[in-house]
Amino acid sequence: MATCRKLTKQLMKELLDSIDTILLDCDGVLWHSNIAVPGAAETINKLRSMMYTCHFSFLQGKQPIFVTNNSTKSRLQYQEKFTKMGFIVSKDEIFGTAYCAALYLKHKLNFTGKVYLMGMSGLEEEMKLHGIDYIGTGPDNVEGQILDHRADNVVLDPDVNGVVVGFDQYFSFMKLLKAASYLKRPNSVFIGTNIDQQFPMRNSELIMPGTGSLVRPVEVASNRTATTLGKPSKFMFECIQEKFDVNPERTIMIGDRLNTDILLGKNCGLKTLAVLTGVTSEEEILGYQGSEKEKERELVPDLYIESIGHLGKLLD
Amino acid sequence: MATCRKLTKQLMKELLDSIDTILLDCDGVLWHSNIAVPGAAETINKLRSMMYTCHFSFLQGKQPIFVTNNSTKSRLQYQEKFTKMGFIVSKDEIFGTAYCAALYLKHKLNFTGKVYLMGMSGLEEEMKLHGIDYIGTGPDNVEGQILDHRADNVVLDPDVNGVVVGFDQYFSFMKLLKAASYLKRPNSVFIGTNIDQQFPMRNSELIMPGTGSLVRPVEVASNRTATTLGKPSKFMFECIQEKFDVNPERTIMIGDRLNTDILLGKNCGLKTLAVLTGVTSEEEILGYQGSEKEKERELVPDLYIESIGHLGKLLD
Repeated sequence: MATCRKLTKQLMKELLDSIDTILLDCDGVLWHSNIAVPGAAETINKLRSMMYTCHFSFLQGKQPIFVTNNSTKSRLQYQEKFTKMGFIVSKDEIFGTAYCAALYLKHKLNFTGKVYLMGMSGLEEEMKLHGIDYIGTGPDNVEGQILDHRADNVVLDPDVNGVVVGFDQYFSFMKLLKAASYLKRPNSVFIGTNIDQQFPMRNSELIMPGTGSLVRPVEVASNRTATTLGKPSKFMFECIQEKFDVNPERTIMIGDRLNTDILLGKNCGLKTLAVLTGVTSEEEILGYQGSEKEKERELVPDLYIESIGHLGKLLD
Repeated sequence: MATCRKLTKQLMKELLDSIDTILLDCDGVLWHSNIAVPGAAETINKLRSMMYTCHFSFLQGKQPIFVTNNSTKSRLQYQEKFTKMGFIVSKDEIFGTAYCAALYLKHKLNFTGKVYLMGMSGLEEEMKLHGIDYIGTGPDNVEGQILDHRADNVVLDPDVNGVVVGFDQYFSFMKLLKAASYLKRPNSVFIGTNIDQQFPMRNSELIMPGTGSLVRPVEVASNRTATTLGKPSKFMFECIQEKFDVNPERTIMIGDRLNTDILLGKNCGLKTLAVLTGVTSEEEILGYQGSEKEKERELVPDLYIESIGHLGKLLD
């Protein structure tokens, strides 16, 4: 039986004593799309700046670090979004998969060459900032008709030796064809920023497909498997550790999704806290506690609370 | 140990005695893209018209039936292609997945309503011929920018209660979004014409993604599983049996792909013959004979031959 406790004022005191760093997922925790979760900015700003005494020692504020699988924005673009919503934040504290994809290519693979990039401006910006050559962004559709599955007019770039798939609203058959074709080249690199199936949508009849539904077709067509970087892959935590002196035992991961956020925390030996403002319900968490499936019990967070705003109130 | 024999003149005589019907895959067997395999039309025309005596009985010609997973053409469009290449063929002998998808909706599901259709003109034509209402064909791309994964301008059709995914050169993010959203509706029908990963391409640096790489993303985004109709699913053989008096024991399936063509034959109790003009090599077939994996041994055809043209020569 895995145990998850609801965060109370008493537990909050113990928690604050035991952590220095707070990793936070963004969508579903701090905001929904472009609407902030009530109290989110106040809570984070307070945690950062709080100075208080406890057990006769003087404690410093907590370091927030933002960890998102969303690849559409660069760190700078995220900083703007955070600032608009009232968060005090430095771009160095923001780890999105656009940034991490650039780090992975640059530092993990020592990649030289050119990538075929499926992605939006955030991914482009991070590639540029890290000096990684790329092609492929923007619309690219089949012109005329592909008859008898011939595509005689498609010309590939001889220098491309890698494919990076992030969220791309211009995803198209032509892009799929080109990505798969580049992946036919021996030793070509294949990275997916993340494998989330959908973006969270509240009260909508629509499903907004996530990057996972763009990575999979490239995998199917190319008959290859992408290296994927987002949570729950440890790579994002490694990126954080490169930049911050983070002690996993004194770090908590706060998120709304069990199989990405909470699992990242578990994979990296962090404490874990789920909020109920995103994709996971209280019933689900409590149900998983006594699940017969080990995979489900592994997803149970240490703690849960209604929302980041409720957490803020426990600080008063 | 599964045993596969190379088709010889002697075996050919025995074979002709034991079959009335010949199912044929098209791409990789009869043609590559729009170029006929040498001798293909002559062989099929001869099999159809041959009248000969054997063991004192007078035997009729063999009934050829064409079975393709390709969903881009209607029966009429295929008939044109066959005729151009010199085949004598009636449209009733052609079973493509565009036609079979319409049959599945109409007769298996008694579908009423409207489908969101990803597909080319062949699929459209078959839907029209079977009186199935549809929307969605042709280009449909995101206009403007999807910011913060909001798609406020997307309007769904209230009458759509099914999604059919075939090959679609206009496959796009917008289409993926709409297909997944329609599949969120309770009881909506979800059909994929086939799951081939790629089209066969000879001597090309390109990969031409197959319908499988368009069905999968819709499955991932919608978190649903499509009913897929193409080979090796028995449904195509059921369609044939509805129209022709076919005795499985006196039928042979000729194809180039083991996990679709040959497996269809095995699934339906047919004799099987592989040709080496497509995706499968002699080494592969012979290697599978002694494979430790039952799944691989199951794919071993009864017979193989270099090409349909070589088969034709054995008829002389």
